[in-house]
Amino acid sequence: MEKVPKDEIQARIDNFQSVLRDENLDGSFILQNVDIFYFSGTIQVSVLFIPREGPPVLMVKKSYQRARDESPLDQVVQIRSEREILSVLREHGHSDLGLLGLEMDVLPTNHYFRYQENFPKSRWLDISQQIRRLRMIKSPYEVEQIKKAALILDKGFSEIKEVIHEGITELEVDGHLALIARREGHMGILRMRGWNQEMTYAHVLSGENGSTVTFCDTATGGTGNTPAMAQGAGFRRIGKNEPIGIDYGVGINGYHGDQFRTFVIGELSADLEKAHDCSKEIHCLLAKEGKAGVTCSHLYSLAEEEARRDGYSDFFMGHGEGKVKYIGHGLGLEIDEYPVISRYFPEKLREGMVIALEPKFIFPGAGVVGLEDDYLVISSGLERLTVTDQVVMKID
Amino acid sequence: MEKVPKDEIQARIDNFQSVLRDENLDGSFILQNVDIFYFSGTIQVSVLFIPREGPPVLMVKKSYQRARDESPLDQVVQIRSEREILSVLREHGHSDLGLLGLEMDVLPTNHYFRYQENFPKSRWLDISQQIRRLRMIKSPYEVEQIKKAALILDKGFSEIKEVIHEGITELEVDGHLALIARREGHMGILRMRGWNQEMTYAHVLSGENGSTVTFCDTATGGTGNTPAMAQGAGFRRIGKNEPIGIDYGVGINGYHGDQFRTFVIGELSADLEKAHDCSKEIHCLLAKEGKAGVTCSHLYSLAEEEARRDGYSDFFMGHGEGKVKYIGHGLGLEIDEYPVISRYFPEKLREGMVIALEPKFIFPGAGVVGLEDDYLVISSGLERLTVTDQVVMKID
Repeated sequence: MEKVPKDEIQARIDNFQSVLRDENLDGSFILQNVDIFYFSGTIQVSVLFIPREGPPVLMVKKSYQRARDESPLDQVVQIRSEREILSVLREHGHSDLGLLGLEMDVLPTNHYFRYQENFPKSRWLDISQQIRRLRMIKSPYEVEQIKKAALILDKGFSEIKEVIHEGITELEVDGHLALIARREGHMGILRMRGWNQEMTYAHVLSGENGSTVTFCDTATGGTGNTPAMAQGAGFRRIGKNEPIGIDYGVGINGYHGDQFRTFVIGELSADLEKAHDCSKEIHCLLAKEGKAGVTCSHLYSLAEEEARRDGYSDFFMGHGEGKVKYIGHGLGLEIDEYPVISRYFPEKLREGMVIALEPKFIFPGAGVVGLEDDYLVISSGLERLTVTDQVVMKID
Repeated sequence: MEKVPKDEIQARIDNFQSVLRDENLDGSFILQNVDIFYFSGTIQVSVLFIPREGPPVLMVKKSYQRARDESPLDQVVQIRSEREILSVLREHGHSDLGLLGLEMDVLPTNHYFRYQENFPKSRWLDISQQIRRLRMIKSPYEVEQIKKAALILDKGFSEIKEVIHEGITELEVDGHLALIARREGHMGILRMRGWNQEMTYAHVLSGENGSTVTFCDTATGGTGNTPAMAQGAGFRRIGKNEPIGIDYGVGINGYHGDQFRTFVIGELSADLEKAHDCSKEIHCLLAKEGKAGVTCSHLYSLAEEEARRDGYSDFFMGHGEGKVKYIGHGLGLEIDEYPVISRYFPEKLREGMVIALEPKFIFPGAGVVGLEDDYLVISSGLERLTVTDQVVMKID
């Protein structure tokens, strides 16, 4: 099993400690699974303390043996309860802790109260935005993981062409995508940071289901087959000559690939083909114009302008209530990372960002067409990490 | 698509309002997906307010149309932002809100701060324990959903026997279980309430992988294939004459079925067969002794005593660091519901509780054997909801 290299972890800790000093913090607790993994290389039940200077302390409840084996950190300590944290930190030279960071965007309120109680002399600062901004810039190691995920997505899209036939349900197609993903090494979950956000392995959206609006902060939603998980595939049987939109995710060593392709049994109408061409044009335009230094809001405007020129404003990234205000998002250990490629995200692209661009067109009653691919931001442009051809995938 | 019946929702609201009055609360916000679904029948992005008396107000951000369609509640209102909540509640006659409930076990700290800010005159009480205790008692409708899930698990176990062969990887078996589950209507996610707890569709644990300890609060863990999701199936190839433990979950209309069976290609050793028999005996014993009025801690003791008599104390529900202190758990919209069948849960079983009992034996280096089944607590005993034979599933 591949472990996170020691120099990766060290570089992340160094960057974070520089943030801690900038913010005048004495240190920060890291408590959420994904952040713990980012800074320690393990998701075993732990409390990670990163001081403003010096080595972090990973305090592990379960499994201590596994955390020791997986994490390249030097200070890995076994604890039985969170009440031991204060004394463990003292033993490691961390007393007089004043201002401390917590991931308040995800940390449950009761946990916050407990930390207040256990550290009565400390004050607390939400450090989540700073962590999300650090994680926005990917190392070559991280980009490699996303590339591996992208290869599996490509394999999955090519295999699923052989599975889809008239009359098959969306759910069965979804199940085959899950089988392929797991067989090839998908870690078995797609992670989102947003409160109440959840994701199945794939969205399979055929015909009018592609225009179903739901709770997800995405242009497409799907019916699902129950209001209890109102998204993705349902029992609808796929027909001929209708768009089949497939959003597919895979996680390798924690890192997600995220891709969307439009399939059809037979042919799409000329209208839908034209809208798909527009999605392709937007990809070409953004891959040319996007590079380090360009603002996310500018990229969004370019895409929106292209959609308007082709007459698709009303259907671009959703319709009616379902319209979302972005055309892409950062991608890494979570699917909903920074940056957001949106009018409201004025920040500049920076080298090492990985973004998924997903210009889609949603036509009420007819469905969804479009393309989603993952790109690495480099100084001169955007380098595509996903490898599947940018075409409508036709099934005879 | 099946919606939650109106009388179900009404009964849940009635019960909760009785709790609100007992606790002297003016009302409670319900903000977490699963709880919103429980009390409203939808998981669309919403804020649900349940006053101590009178009809609840469901304030929906996205999708309003879908929430209206899915929820049998009478007062469903569209909002654009959480800042509108105060005025919407005023319009519905809810001003002067003093003590209010929040689900502080799951609600992120920043959300709590936002509610404090938006309702400067209110005080707040954690209402999560009360909600979890209400949800512990299932209605006949809810039991029906779990039974549907159990039928799919049975089908999956029977189909997977035809798939497993010497040399197949755990991950490929896991993928087939996902395919079957989705094809049959699994909602595509297994939900856990615990902080940082996550679950793949299934755990496929062959040979020594069945004794791998990891972060999950379960007797078994598995290697997974990455420290980033250190659980369940990995690339290990399944061999002959070794135990293959499969923990399988399916969600139907939000409700989970949860089952474990031991498979083998060929034969288990006499030792492992004997341990499996002990798991079966514990099931028989608990099904006989367990009924409304019996404490959870007593059930646990009965199981532990039976394991001790057979000489398996060191391997019962884990070994070493991996040992867990329960043999079962409540089951419903989440997999980790109340009650916990544990020495430390002194409460009595009540009619309508649904529990998964999972006496397992974990032998370091050799693997896991055991049985898990779901039971409804009735006045005279435990009624098994899962239908698969309680035997080792042998593959030629």
